[in-house]
Amino acid sequence: MTKTFEKNEKRIEQDIIALSAIIDSVAPGYTRRPFTKWHLESREWLIREMKNCGLDVRIDAASNLIGKRQGVNPELPPIMIGSHTDSVVGGGRFDGIIGVLAGIEIVRQLNEKKIELAHSLLIVDFTAEEASEFGISTIGSRGMVGNLTEADLGRTNAEGLPLRNALKVAGGRPDDLETEALKVGDISLYLELHIEQGPVLEQTQHELGVVTGIVGIQRHKVVVEGQANHAGTTPMHMRFDALPAASELVLALEEVANKTYTEQVVGTVGRMFVEPNGANVIPGRVVFDFEIRSLDPHALDQMVEYMKNKIAHVETSRKVSITMNQLSHSDAIIVSEDVVQGVEKSCQRFGTTLRLPSGAGHDGNQLAKVAPVGMIFVPSKNGKSHCPEEWTDYAEVVKGIQALGTALLSFDKALSV
Amino acid sequence: MTKTFEKNEKRIEQDIIALSAIIDSVAPGYTRRPFTKWHLESREWLIREMKNCGLDVRIDAASNLIGKRQGVNPELPPIMIGSHTDSVVGGGRFDGIIGVLAGIEIVRQLNEKKIELAHSLLIVDFTAEEASEFGISTIGSRGMVGNLTEADLGRTNAEGLPLRNALKVAGGRPDDLETEALKVGDISLYLELHIEQGPVLEQTQHELGVVTGIVGIQRHKVVVEGQANHAGTTPMHMRFDALPAASELVLALEEVANKTYTEQVVGTVGRMFVEPNGANVIPGRVVFDFEIRSLDPHALDQMVEYMKNKIAHVETSRKVSITMNQLSHSDAIIVSEDVVQGVEKSCQRFGTTLRLPSGAGHDGNQLAKVAPVGMIFVPSKNGKSHCPEEWTDYAEVVKGIQALGTALLSFDKALSV
Repeated sequence: MTKTFEKNEKRIEQDIIALSAIIDSVAPGYTRRPFTKWHLESREWLIREMKNCGLDVRIDAASNLIGKRQGVNPELPPIMIGSHTDSVVGGGRFDGIIGVLAGIEIVRQLNEKKIELAHSLLIVDFTAEEASEFGISTIGSRGMVGNLTEADLGRTNAEGLPLRNALKVAGGRPDDLETEALKVGDISLYLELHIEQGPVLEQTQHELGVVTGIVGIQRHKVVVEGQANHAGTTPMHMRFDALPAASELVLALEEVANKTYTEQVVGTVGRMFVEPNGANVIPGRVVFDFEIRSLDPHALDQMVEYMKNKIAHVETSRKVSITMNQLSHSDAIIVSEDVVQGVEKSCQRFGTTLRLPSGAGHDGNQLAKVAPVGMIFVPSKNGKSHCPEEWTDYAEVVKGIQALGTALLSFDKALSV
Repeated sequence: MTKTFEKNEKRIEQDIIALSAIIDSVAPGYTRRPFTKWHLESREWLIREMKNCGLDVRIDAASNLIGKRQGVNPELPPIMIGSHTDSVVGGGRFDGIIGVLAGIEIVRQLNEKKIELAHSLLIVDFTAEEASEFGISTIGSRGMVGNLTEADLGRTNAEGLPLRNALKVAGGRPDDLETEALKVGDISLYLELHIEQGPVLEQTQHELGVVTGIVGIQRHKVVVEGQANHAGTTPMHMRFDALPAASELVLALEEVANKTYTEQVVGTVGRMFVEPNGANVIPGRVVFDFEIRSLDPHALDQMVEYMKNKIAHVETSRKVSITMNQLSHSDAIIVSEDVVQGVEKSCQRFGTTLRLPSGAGHDGNQLAKVAPVGMIFVPSKNGKSHCPEEWTDYAEVVKGIQALGTALLSFDKALSV
């Protein structure tokens, strides 16, 4: 009995191909939206595979699919491995899927090698991790940790269906959410394998990423009020043009993001609306959103402070009026140093390894409320995700699974003493 | 007999109020679109007023309304005073109208004072000066100088009506356009009184503006191609963000317009489209138009050169791809120095006077193809035009009429020798 996980590249390739085939054939790319028949079909496939490797399968109150492998020591809280199989519209074949398949593949190999773990192991397919029609994301993991409010359950999709009812469609029991909610201590550790969804591993030529945390996000809305006027008859020095004012702020955000850190802070103006947006009219109003992300809340606060100062400066110098209002924020999740080191050690056995933050949110954001979390990234070709071109070589997925399984074994041991 | 024009403020106020009442009551503001029944009704009103002061009235091939006052010397080509009574949708009460009414008021006073001119005098209400449903502006004056092509006449409005037929609705004879077209020498001088449509006279506290020319206009389209990516997972130094690149160009245009001249060059980015314009997606593509205006074609060429250099610089520094294509251009009209001086002398008798270029196009753009042109501006309150708030005090309109009439007398004399 050797405690090294096998490559089994053919088996994981077949799993990914099989699961990728269960999609909405009318929608673009690889679309498997939560609460649809395609998502329920993929669940049937997963249940069959989970049962084939001896897992005890159930659906929890929040409609998450959970397969349990019994541990030797029933007093230890279980270790959880999870991810999701729902996709964005027009998504790809790897985002989420590989994390759930990794859990199943690890159980198969544990069985083949007859390895018993001290901890029970839970393999979870979370419901609706991606941004949903209900206006929130990570619905299943929120529900699992008691973070779905009554207001959330009352949110409706375009057809007017409340989230409460959608959860029932997927087998959930919204009335039991409160009693089933996991609390601190109920789980020993949460682990997840995911694609990076960015270009860092590929461009720095690393095979495995050890996630140091999940960035906090702040979104702000900026409204620049100038004065719309005739573009021909209004001399330059008599204008109150909202667009150059907004342009200064776009460049200011880029500048402060560039100088605050190297890779650990990002700032983006993704959306901008110019009014009245006529070829021969000086823009009277520009509205834009910006978002900033970092593991470090102080860095975010400093960036907001910088933008406020810049706005005051632009208001004075251009005699325009600018408001800035926070639209939303989510706190950063920091992976504890012992989890980072444990994951990193396992990764280094299978490939070149880089520590990096996750710039996107995950179910780990929710699980972190009740347990330590750890994540492993595998490279995304050209940094692309949420599109049909999303790709990670099967050999790279396999390295991720080997590292994840090895991390599981080491934490099972470390957390038993 | 004194050769000073009277104030007659009450009469001009009544004229403006009467003509402003003939509007489309369903449309916003003061709307009198060309080729509509409201425009034809306003023509009936004008014809009555023209006949009341003894003008010989006709509609030319291009459907312009022309009232003629016979001069003493039939060998001299006539002097023309004109403007337009069509408006934009949701327009005001002064743009165009005051220029036509000024011509009629001047004829009334010439009659009252029994002043005979050496030149015949033509008072013209041009058809469709404003941007029309046919995609071109200054239709009547284009037609008058032989500048409506067969292609132009084939242009259709939203209902599929060709411009050729629309001209007939307004009494035009498109088949006669070629034979009736004015040629160089057919007109001694074209004069027009118009509202400024900008803030310069008001802000510099001048009552009358002597137009030194009508600016040339170049419009260009710029497409910035970067790379759309996840706003969270793409580090700052791995981005090809099209929006900061476009922002640099917006600021560059403003900078070069500010430094090229003080009041005689303007540069505007009026329209911008960001793609995909999602809150958490780095902009992959930004498309914007810019326009530049100046009396000086070299200044325009220099600005274009500056933008091309800036674009090359941004392409290199940001590794994005940028194209720039000219959409349209119109040449500047320069008012000859002797006309400027003659108009200026007349203006100075009635108020504080400023030389300034016209930043907007006028029928003078077309008349300049066959004759010297001169224009007088009166102030626009808050610089506004093309809106219901458009306003010029009646006392200011009157000063403009007095100056225009005085200029007419002086040119009638000067051009007779």
